[in-house]
Amino acid sequence: MGISPWLLSTPLMEELYGKDARLCPSSHGEATFVFSQSRPLDLIELEQLLASVGWSRRPQRLVKRALENSLLTIGLWSHDPSIPRLVGFARCTGDGVLEATVWDVVVHPVWQGSGLGKELMKYVLELLRTMRVQRVTLFADPGVVDFYLRQGWTLEPKGRRCAFWYAN
Amino acid sequence: MGISPWLLSTPLMEELYGKDARLCPSSHGEATFVFSQSRPLDLIELEQLLASVGWSRRPQRLVKRALENSLLTIGLWSHDPSIPRLVGFARCTGDGVLEATVWDVVVHPVWQGSGLGKELMKYVLELLRTMRVQRVTLFADPGVVDFYLRQGWTLEPKGRRCAFWYAN
Repeated sequence: MGISPWLLSTPLMEELYGKDARLCPSSHGEATFVFSQSRPLDLIELEQLLASVGWSRRPQRLVKRALENSLLTIGLWSHDPSIPRLVGFARCTGDGVLEATVWDVVVHPVWQGSGLGKELMKYVLELLRTMRVQRVTLFADPGVVDFYLRQGWTLEPKGRRCAFWYAN
Repeated sequence: MGISPWLLSTPLMEELYGKDARLCPSSHGEATFVFSQSRPLDLIELEQLLASVGWSRRPQRLVKRALENSLLTIGLWSHDPSIPRLVGFARCTGDGVLEATVWDVVVHPVWQGSGLGKELMKYVLELLRTMRVQRVTLFADPGVVDFYLRQGWTLEPKGRRCAFWYAN
């Protein structure tokens, strides 16, 4: 069960989610959502979240190192004073100056359709803008191309195509 | 003027290009090419190289920080005992575990068409394979899509599209 936004005091928010925590606007009146870059992620909970949108699981030790080496990792939490739940996630890699690339953007299906994904991406770009990163890139699954276009992303500018190479 | 491969001794190669230096195979009989991750790059020479293929110039202080924050930076040098020339370049960002993204792949037009680009990409992938990176991505300009396809890259797997967001 979530609690109303006004019941989440700043001290409690900082205690649970870190000093960088930020309320995430949403149309869910009954729940409060918080962005955090510092609340530790439970890797099992993260992989369950990624699996909830159909992404294949990856070895935990690799995910742990990948998160450590990321430019940004952002958890979106459904607030609960005792057990906050991870309902969204995104991370970026990059040099933090000229380039950043966004990966693993996910909102749990239960919470989709209420603007959380849009707010998550707005927050990611806000953080990258603060770092003054010049260009941000991502690889969009077919079903979410329109989602990114609506938010001002440019699809394949100058005819650029994306190419992937897999180790296995 | 380059010198023949057999005149570049291992001690000289290490002195000029670092312990990680590696000869780059090429069909240019009269020149010797060397990969190096550690020979310091002259930022003006690098930007001239990038400009030689039509890429726009970027502020040097940003390029400097971007290189420092890269996962890999690889210079391809035309060997000369007194003044090695930078004739190719590539760099990667990423978490070094799950994802790496290749940027700024360039071979000077004078040296194109002799397999240097192919060797450069082979070397990049070999380094990333050694790091055990699972997936490598890049954004290919229209004119080089076939170049990557021929080397085993997959274009937009699962219908993924690339999207860009620019700070300015």
